[in-house]
Amino acid sequence: MRMVDLIEKKRDGQALTKEEIEFIIQEYTADKIPDYQMSAFLMAVFYEDMTDEEIVALTLAMANSGEKIDLSSIHGIKVDKHSTGGVGDTTTLVLAPLVASVGVPVAKMSGRGLGYTGGTLDKLESIPGFKIELSDHAFIEEVNKNKVAVIGQSGDLAPADKKLYALRDVTATVDSIPLIASSIMSKKIAAGADAIVLDVTTGEGAFMKNLKDARRLSHMMVRIGELAKRKTMAVISDMSQPLGQAIGNSLEVIEAIETLQGRGPADLLEMCYVLGSQMVVLGQKAETLEEARDLLEKAISSGAAFETFQRMIKNQDGDETICQHPEQLLTAQFEIELPAKTSGVVTKLVANEIGIAAMLLGAGRQTKEAAIDHSVGLKLHKKVGEKVEKGEPLLTIYSNSQQNEQVEELLYENIHIGPSADKPTLIHEIITS
Amino acid sequence: MRMVDLIEKKRDGQALTKEEIEFIIQEYTADKIPDYQMSAFLMAVFYEDMTDEEIVALTLAMANSGEKIDLSSIHGIKVDKHSTGGVGDTTTLVLAPLVASVGVPVAKMSGRGLGYTGGTLDKLESIPGFKIELSDHAFIEEVNKNKVAVIGQSGDLAPADKKLYALRDVTATVDSIPLIASSIMSKKIAAGADAIVLDVTTGEGAFMKNLKDARRLSHMMVRIGELAKRKTMAVISDMSQPLGQAIGNSLEVIEAIETLQGRGPADLLEMCYVLGSQMVVLGQKAETLEEARDLLEKAISSGAAFETFQRMIKNQDGDETICQHPEQLLTAQFEIELPAKTSGVVTKLVANEIGIAAMLLGAGRQTKEAAIDHSVGLKLHKKVGEKVEKGEPLLTIYSNSQQNEQVEELLYENIHIGPSADKPTLIHEIITS
Repeated sequence: MRMVDLIEKKRDGQALTKEEIEFIIQEYTADKIPDYQMSAFLMAVFYEDMTDEEIVALTLAMANSGEKIDLSSIHGIKVDKHSTGGVGDTTTLVLAPLVASVGVPVAKMSGRGLGYTGGTLDKLESIPGFKIELSDHAFIEEVNKNKVAVIGQSGDLAPADKKLYALRDVTATVDSIPLIASSIMSKKIAAGADAIVLDVTTGEGAFMKNLKDARRLSHMMVRIGELAKRKTMAVISDMSQPLGQAIGNSLEVIEAIETLQGRGPADLLEMCYVLGSQMVVLGQKAETLEEARDLLEKAISSGAAFETFQRMIKNQDGDETICQHPEQLLTAQFEIELPAKTSGVVTKLVANEIGIAAMLLGAGRQTKEAAIDHSVGLKLHKKVGEKVEKGEPLLTIYSNSQQNEQVEELLYENIHIGPSADKPTLIHEIITS
Repeated sequence: MRMVDLIEKKRDGQALTKEEIEFIIQEYTADKIPDYQMSAFLMAVFYEDMTDEEIVALTLAMANSGEKIDLSSIHGIKVDKHSTGGVGDTTTLVLAPLVASVGVPVAKMSGRGLGYTGGTLDKLESIPGFKIELSDHAFIEEVNKNKVAVIGQSGDLAPADKKLYALRDVTATVDSIPLIASSIMSKKIAAGADAIVLDVTTGEGAFMKNLKDARRLSHMMVRIGELAKRKTMAVISDMSQPLGQAIGNSLEVIEAIETLQGRGPADLLEMCYVLGSQMVVLGQKAETLEEARDLLEKAISSGAAFETFQRMIKNQDGDETICQHPEQLLTAQFEIELPAKTSGVVTKLVANEIGIAAMLLGAGRQTKEAAIDHSVGLKLHKKVGEKVEKGEPLLTIYSNSQQNEQVEELLYENIHIGPSADKPTLIHEIITS
């Protein structure tokens, strides 16, 4: 088999066989296929797309390219959750203990944030003492004991995906739905989950800018999951404006606590119920989504979900007193309210730009190596569809600098006030197969 | 400027500016853009094509990427000729002295053959003593004195093209008409010609397998020539069967001598008249193609063209006695006639496969480094449309081996005999602007 012939085959619109795709991924991972051939191949895939069979073969080849996590010693059906990324997306912090509290084991490996997209690990690290590195043994023990642990990715999972992603990033081949789908699913499969719930965000703050692409990506990933024998569901959710009110690491931990106590933002809570219901059904703790939701609502109102969160923090060496006194996490030097310049209704909160404003404050990373400031961020007081009077605060800026003009300007540019606007639809579609 | 942004721009169907294309070629030639970005870009070009402006900018950027030959001290309009490659294509050997003999200076730099496509330098080197390396000074002096010299490429012409071609070869991005056009034209422009005649071959033995692609490539190259201020014409010619009768280096020199003496194969002579007429018009030695052809026919019948050829051989240190005694070049140990297995009419001579048969005898190179045997090859006795009786020789094999079964089998497979067939059209189109 010669790589140049396989590039040509794909370029000419023919589907590759499972064996050909395995050859490509194995040889590329072993540095036997050079980057210049792989990037030409990726560009051909960008144009020619892939069949279901090709995408599954690619996903499994990448999942098999390195270590695979063995979660078989965790009792029950392990359900993983993945979001395609958002701004102020506090979902995992709420969802992991919430779902665990109704008996679904959550052995979650999370990532760090890059650019304006936050990462769960960064958020958890704003809790003093919280340990995101556990041995495989300790991780599994934690999940068996408390039903939940959230840690950083351990081991060399799907190295082919890592290598490919770095190449795609510099060759304009990121925006390919089959490549995105196989990248996400290969990591989830290598991470050992039995079932997977996908939150496919759409809108300005998301990777999928429109519903059509989000729908295609969702269906493709659910199909990969099925063919790879992982039960998979997906939710297409709105990311035209940030989710919830908080954007920034410790601010989002506070928001998660409030949400687990039943007093968080309505949209965040709703997202957690929708995604959580899927996880509970896949985890076979309920037969229908309605029944699952009922269990989750009770776990919030009874305090069981909040208690599970507290135990998780304690078990991972975090300072659990922040659960009773979340205001301890408010350590930014300056809190600046941004007043509305006119009266009206908020018509737009451009999610990615607001995410960039938070990043400029220090809440996000501009490069992979950059350090982040856990204390800074934004708290939105008005969301799309809400009335605002001139002079009323649109949001609060939490900053460690006195110079915030650039951030304020960026925020004003991206918070539009007009005569009227509907609240955006939060959940566009639920895809169960 | 970032290469990844330029890849994306092309990928999204936008035209690049002259400055952007110059940036790409300069940085790539200087090894500042990695191969993996360039190959993704080339694949995007394969799909998205290029505008006339982009192709001209690319051609000139490549022509300017290294040394350029200065032919300004040669008197008159220097007309170069390029063929996109063929089997048994003896054209240059005939055309160069023919056109020179009517006063058009021919300062020709030729290449070697690869695969089943022959190279003019290899053919000339089958003449004992013939020197294909001349200093720039000697080359120019030769052309001024005798109007013709044919040498190997000197200097570092269009290194960007050389680097790009090597990359295209291993990334399935060779078959892109704008990339082919700019590659050919960049070398011709760097080689210093004032005007260019292009022989765009089409059919099984050619790079362009169909007329549509050949037409597009021809028009594109003529347009590049115009925009780069080089007068350019093109001929689309048939390469479904080999041109002339001889395939192989010294056999083609013999055929060239016979053609210059007016007794060569009709198709080869016709090709030389058609291409030569264009060269004579571009060289301003005639006003119309008809007038030019008349001059060329007279140069053959008067012996002037043949004399010019003899002088060229002598001036480049070759053994000129072969002109009077071309049979001296017949040095292959074995001459085997291949008899027809049935009676009928030759319906097909698959050019590339017959070229491969000659290559297997040793007439061509399977790899760039391979040595070739000048003495071996094939001489066709029957061409498409000609009658043949069972047992009559289809061709003669000139070989230095007693084992020729594989070659014979390949030839039989690719010489089809049927009830009837027309002679194929030799010249499909003439494109003068």
